[in-house]
Amino acid sequence: MIHICVVGCGAIGSLYAAHLARLDDVEVWAVDPWAEHVDAINARGLVVVSRLGPGGPHTSTTEGSPVRATTDAADVPACELGIVATKAEHTREAVAACADVFADAAVASVQNGLGNEEVLADLVPRVIRGTILPAGAVTEPGVVRYDAPGDTWLGPFEPKPASMDEVRLLADLLTRAGLKTHALEDARGPQWDKVVFNSATSPLAALTGLPMGPLCEDPALRAEVDALVAEAQDVCAALGIETEKDPAAMVAEAIEIAYHHKPSMLQDVLARRRTEVDVLNGGVAAAGRTAGVPTPRHDAMVALVHGLERSWPMNVEETS
Amino acid sequence: MIHICVVGCGAIGSLYAAHLARLDDVEVWAVDPWAEHVDAINARGLVVVSRLGPGGPHTSTTEGSPVRATTDAADVPACELGIVATKAEHTREAVAACADVFADAAVASVQNGLGNEEVLADLVPRVIRGTILPAGAVTEPGVVRYDAPGDTWLGPFEPKPASMDEVRLLADLLTRAGLKTHALEDARGPQWDKVVFNSATSPLAALTGLPMGPLCEDPALRAEVDALVAEAQDVCAALGIETEKDPAAMVAEAIEIAYHHKPSMLQDVLARRRTEVDVLNGGVAAAGRTAGVPTPRHDAMVALVHGLERSWPMNVEETS
Repeated sequence: MIHICVVGCGAIGSLYAAHLARLDDVEVWAVDPWAEHVDAINARGLVVVSRLGPGGPHTSTTEGSPVRATTDAADVPACELGIVATKAEHTREAVAACADVFADAAVASVQNGLGNEEVLADLVPRVIRGTILPAGAVTEPGVVRYDAPGDTWLGPFEPKPASMDEVRLLADLLTRAGLKTHALEDARGPQWDKVVFNSATSPLAALTGLPMGPLCEDPALRAEVDALVAEAQDVCAALGIETEKDPAAMVAEAIEIAYHHKPSMLQDVLARRRTEVDVLNGGVAAAGRTAGVPTPRHDAMVALVHGLERSWPMNVEETS
Repeated sequence: MIHICVVGCGAIGSLYAAHLARLDDVEVWAVDPWAEHVDAINARGLVVVSRLGPGGPHTSTTEGSPVRATTDAADVPACELGIVATKAEHTREAVAACADVFADAAVASVQNGLGNEEVLADLVPRVIRGTILPAGAVTEPGVVRYDAPGDTWLGPFEPKPASMDEVRLLADLLTRAGLKTHALEDARGPQWDKVVFNSATSPLAALTGLPMGPLCEDPALRAEVDALVAEAQDVCAALGIETEKDPAAMVAEAIEIAYHHKPSMLQDVLARRRTEVDVLNGGVAAAGRTAGVPTPRHDAMVALVHGLERSWPMNVEETS
């Protein structure tokens, strides 16, 4: 029996926990502060419903997956593997609470952006760099909606690496559970593929309020997307990271299959939640400083989105 | 008796009409589509109230100024002088309706940004380039609040100029009426002083929701302000326009005396009205194209603010 602890059981944590918990040789624990979600999971299992049609990779189940959920990491036994799926700002506190759980574990980040693995490296013995494409949303306590399929990439985080055996173990479990996962010696390429695209589109969506399609179809905004892409690609090249995807093709695909999609940073803005701009555009800017590559456009996105976050208490009367 | 027609009787049009109407040798007409405002002006005069203390340039009057207001330009006799104070997007329609009024008139724009005089030049025989600093707000029909004093600058619009005699006539009337006005052979400098500052601050305020003080005190956003200033100054220099003011001093002054001020572009965004970004950052960008100076940061502001305007119908449910 392999013990896996998922830290942060929002949309992504729930999808990964629910899939893994269908395997007979895995015991899945989930730690999350939302008591109603935890109670519902323990009462009825973690239920995955799907918007994907019959041709999709997954159909709905009414039977929940047997995830063991808790609000208190002290309830969780020592685990061989971990998956961290909190928002970036909660990583340190949430993982620090799992010090005993992860005393001898390999722990993967499946979070957005750059810099999450660096935080994990302060807190756990071995770290796995992870990048994921699946998307979803928790629709009610104990229920996660599976909105978009996609691959997962895992690899050792170089400064404090998990072994390739551990990386392959987690990748094989995820693939068997229905989430196709690639184990790579160097997983920076897929991570930057995602970061380049997201950091070029998410802050523009967040600042304008436009979903992906209307954003990317607007010629003037598309020029901004392209300029942000070019800046991030320059950083990537200076760091010797080889990306695989063509951002222009990713934009075309987003217009085609995700026209009305609101990136999570826009969802955060509409809900007046603090965004993850620090790990997206801030991550690109930090990598740029390391590489000696200026990133004025990404700097501007960080400044504007943080300014927007700071304004919310000041404009209460206009929007309440 | 000198006949003056003010087109657009919002805050600025009302302030200028009310001041001029106190002069015995001037007959002031105002054309505006807001019937309640027009009716109130005709019933009780146009009342100016002031937030400025006793030391300010103006104290409140309960007696309205005798402005002749109408919603229909056909009511207005032929005038020697005109003042256009509509939002930029309404200029063409509003002034075209005054063709007979302005058949032999010198007409000044006191509007925001760049490009308004070019529109007037299509419609009236002689054009005056105007830049103003006073600010206010119409608080109820027939009443305008005078919030901030400041000078006015007028000069011939070179492609279709009013005579310097006409410029001086209007400047002298305004100064006698209490609005200190300078008549200049070349009034482009003051216009660009205002445009450089406004185009560097207004769109950042509009996109973030931050008032002037919190915006300009934020080091990361201040860097964006400074970069927008530098870009506009490059355009200005390439066109041979000499500005007089130091934008850094204008920023310091804004923090000092207008900390909580929300620029009109932010007010427009909060009210979900179309903004004037086209005559501000769009005006700088257009001038840059004329001068052969690239303006990528102003282009980005235009793209983002227009994107924001386009998103409003798409996000109704989140904000209602």
